[in-house]
Amino acid sequence: MTTMEFQVTGMTCGHCEMSVREEVAKIAGVESIDVSAATGRLTIASAAPVDADAVIAAVDEAGYQAVRG
Amino acid sequence: MTTMEFQVTGMTCGHCEMSVREEVAKIAGVESIDVSAATGRLTIASAAPVDADAVIAAVDEAGYQAVRG
Repeated sequence: MTTMEFQVTGMTCGHCEMSVREEVAKIAGVESIDVSAATGRLTIASAAPVDADAVIAAVDEAGYQAVRG
Repeated sequence: MTTMEFQVTGMTCGHCEMSVREEVAKIAGVESIDVSAATGRLTIASAAPVDADAVIAAVDEAGYQAVRG
């Protein structure tokens, strides 16, 4: 299992978390997603590493900005 | 046309506005809804006056608190 961490800006509430979760869940290989509006942390677990740019694009699609780290 | 004003607390983003809008739109007679997370203002227009308690209950259902005024 690989985990990948991102910092997301712009999320303010549980609805925002859900939007991010829904978009990131569409990425092939993603097995679990932890996301917190309070801290901005997004943690993705997958069997094989996922393309970080795909994650950043998914977060953008949800309406927020992510950077890896 | 009658308008009725409420102050809503707890909304933080457009998703929150949408949740309030969806619940309030279920009330019979409501013809238009203006809602702003930035100001907390909820303004409802209807041909005949709507039951304020029904509006407060709808906002509560969405997960927020409203008071008339």
